[in-house]
Amino acid sequence: MYRDPVQSLQPLYSRPAPTRPLRVGMIGIGTVGAGTFRVLARNRADIAGRAGREIEMVIVSARNLSRAAGIVGKGVELTDDPLRVATHPDVDVVVEVAGGTGPARDWVLAAIAHGKHVVTANKALLALHGAEIFASARQHGVAVAYEGAVAVSIPIIKALREGLTANRIEWVAGIINGTTNFILSKMRDEGLDFAAALAQAQALGYAEADPSFDIEGIDAAHKLTLLAANAFGMPVRFADVQVEGITSLQGLDVACAEQLGFRIKLLGVARRQADGVELRVQPALVPATHLMAHVNGSMNGIMVKADAAGVTMYYGAGAGSEPTASAVIADLVDVARLDGTHAAQRVPHLGFHVHAMSALPVLPRAAVCTPHYLRVPVHAAKQIKAVAAWLAGQHVPVRQVRPAAERPGMSPQVLVLTDAVVQATVDLAVRTLQAHPAVAGAVTTLRVEELAD
Amino acid sequence: MYRDPVQSLQPLYSRPAPTRPLRVGMIGIGTVGAGTFRVLARNRADIAGRAGREIEMVIVSARNLSRAAGIVGKGVELTDDPLRVATHPDVDVVVEVAGGTGPARDWVLAAIAHGKHVVTANKALLALHGAEIFASARQHGVAVAYEGAVAVSIPIIKALREGLTANRIEWVAGIINGTTNFILSKMRDEGLDFAAALAQAQALGYAEADPSFDIEGIDAAHKLTLLAANAFGMPVRFADVQVEGITSLQGLDVACAEQLGFRIKLLGVARRQADGVELRVQPALVPATHLMAHVNGSMNGIMVKADAAGVTMYYGAGAGSEPTASAVIADLVDVARLDGTHAAQRVPHLGFHVHAMSALPVLPRAAVCTPHYLRVPVHAAKQIKAVAAWLAGQHVPVRQVRPAAERPGMSPQVLVLTDAVVQATVDLAVRTLQAHPAVAGAVTTLRVEELAD
Repeated sequence: MYRDPVQSLQPLYSRPAPTRPLRVGMIGIGTVGAGTFRVLARNRADIAGRAGREIEMVIVSARNLSRAAGIVGKGVELTDDPLRVATHPDVDVVVEVAGGTGPARDWVLAAIAHGKHVVTANKALLALHGAEIFASARQHGVAVAYEGAVAVSIPIIKALREGLTANRIEWVAGIINGTTNFILSKMRDEGLDFAAALAQAQALGYAEADPSFDIEGIDAAHKLTLLAANAFGMPVRFADVQVEGITSLQGLDVACAEQLGFRIKLLGVARRQADGVELRVQPALVPATHLMAHVNGSMNGIMVKADAAGVTMYYGAGAGSEPTASAVIADLVDVARLDGTHAAQRVPHLGFHVHAMSALPVLPRAAVCTPHYLRVPVHAAKQIKAVAAWLAGQHVPVRQVRPAAERPGMSPQVLVLTDAVVQATVDLAVRTLQAHPAVAGAVTTLRVEELAD
Repeated sequence: MYRDPVQSLQPLYSRPAPTRPLRVGMIGIGTVGAGTFRVLARNRADIAGRAGREIEMVIVSARNLSRAAGIVGKGVELTDDPLRVATHPDVDVVVEVAGGTGPARDWVLAAIAHGKHVVTANKALLALHGAEIFASARQHGVAVAYEGAVAVSIPIIKALREGLTANRIEWVAGIINGTTNFILSKMRDEGLDFAAALAQAQALGYAEADPSFDIEGIDAAHKLTLLAANAFGMPVRFADVQVEGITSLQGLDVACAEQLGFRIKLLGVARRQADGVELRVQPALVPATHLMAHVNGSMNGIMVKADAAGVTMYYGAGAGSEPTASAVIADLVDVARLDGTHAAQRVPHLGFHVHAMSALPVLPRAAVCTPHYLRVPVHAAKQIKAVAAWLAGQHVPVRQVRPAAERPGMSPQVLVLTDAVVQATVDLAVRTLQAHPAVAGAVTTLRVEELAD
């Protein structure tokens, strides 16, 4: 029925001499930790077949030991002391999935000081303390792997650090927070305002009870910090990211963007300019025909523009127990494929060797240059021409002006799209436009990202 | 203006002791070879900063030595003898970008026998001779890297072999031939028939003078062979791929698919079933709202369904000088990051260690089970019900039946979408339907791929 062309190669399929397992200690066993146990057990044979050795869980720390006992099964030591995991003599690799930044920093540094490799999905930890953690890892000759820290199901750190190494990377733009993408999709699909969409996201488990890290853009900024460092060979620079969330985004602007042929997405953008890099998170208009406009619900999507490869895009789940476990285990397999050689630091932590990194200046917000969307409430529809003429006089390169579709009980709205213009010019123009006699309310501005070559 | 949080770490930015360059020999210097030279020169500092050492071209073989001399510059030996490159004592890695399968096999095997690592973008070579080449590389302890063999700009081999190692992969579906995707996009956008779209593709350089490898699906089948091997841990099995190209695809079916809410794409599909794997290349209907339907022009897109990560997707250029060079150089950086350690075979050639591979049975065409599209020319529009009833009587699970939009001078057409059904049932039903008195011409069938979970 089928021919097996490799029968003749069967002698090569002999099993090699057994290699000792990679021994793992895990700090924390919440959603991600439990998923890691589940996937390691379910796909044990495939994972060992890829890694060349077994991956064996030795010790786990948990706050709730009886709950943890139900997950880890027999043969795994349980402790309530994370430092015992970090320093355990039988452990080769410490997986940190407890979260937080203060104690987690101490545990990770302790593990490194004891010669353990570290795998973590903790973007906040690395965005804030990455420079210190990576420096310590270099000194101790261990790997710190963090594929699960950005767009968990997508091997984007590997793509940047290993797949696109031939390239000078020009920009990275990502939908890298699933909660806000879910909310924005709801606002568009169901015409909801932000508060209503957030309530739905919370009811369905896509947003936490305290959603501020997500909706204020902090989580996306943590991830952008790591993407930019790997793309450009710069240190992690969370404090320099310009962060704007979606809490003040109005449903009206989602609808007006749609009318102009755009969708609004919360984008993290890292872009090289002649005199520095832009590092920013903000809601932005993306052309509706663009692939990134079709990254909906809680999914993540990341585009990379590189000088040789051109534009590539990566899409997948950005959160969840098993998607994150997929990244954590891939990092363990990477370590398993090397541990015991002097090449444990085969790939530099941030893609570039330290001597080749440069502390690129981060451009201030005023210098960021993109096309813009403006929505200007006016007293009468006929004032559209006055607004356009006035903006042009303020050096705003107006590309397109049109009235928003009429809405009952609302003053007429002028919608403006501009060509690329620096933020300083837009800010100044809007501040003075606000006092123009034709203007009937607060002017809204949003960036437009065309994500083209 | 900006703060540099890593100033305090400057002492760590010291340059390490110099490492000797990775020395490369290249066989062939056509489009891809020239692109590789260009990118290596342009991004030399970034590439060395990532690899930890320089990548130095030592020797190049070419048929046209004077043309080659204009590309390689001084300091690189030129020869017309590929075997001199393959066996050169100063060479660490041999890059094979000459193409073809007969002589290229000999050169690659010679390089391996002389202890050289091999980097190639030659999918035909690996699809046909991969088992032999990888076995020899294992014996000699060298790497054979081939990121450029599939969807060049996208690090998809790396994603499968290293990024998704935690997962049991359920299916891979890809638009992995840019020429046919360009032709199909033209057929849809401009209402062209196949021959006219092919002529445009040739005029614009997207199709070769002899386009048969592309339009008959052979090139896609080569690539699918490599994707399936890495996804499922099976040997390369090109001879078992069911291959159908787009040469007999009619513009009418592109239009009728559109009417039903689908686009036609040439897909390579590798899918696990309970009793084996499907390995097939064919034009298929994809929902118009699906991300894969938006992979247009000469771009490539690959989706992977994995049990833990879920669905991930990868998009980028599938051909071209610098996009291919991007993959070739990434493979060189991978080698540079390891060469000199005993871990040169860190990642098994096909993702799984040989003892863990299995010669999964490839399902025969008759057993492949997908939804189907049928277009049935009938003598009169009212016969639509007769056709539907007749198909249902033949155990074809009809999901939807509707008339095609009327076209001047053409008999009425019945369009049918089915639920999942094995090919054997469809084939039998169509053969007998063809003799039905209502039927006025040849019945067309195409597979539907919903690419959902």
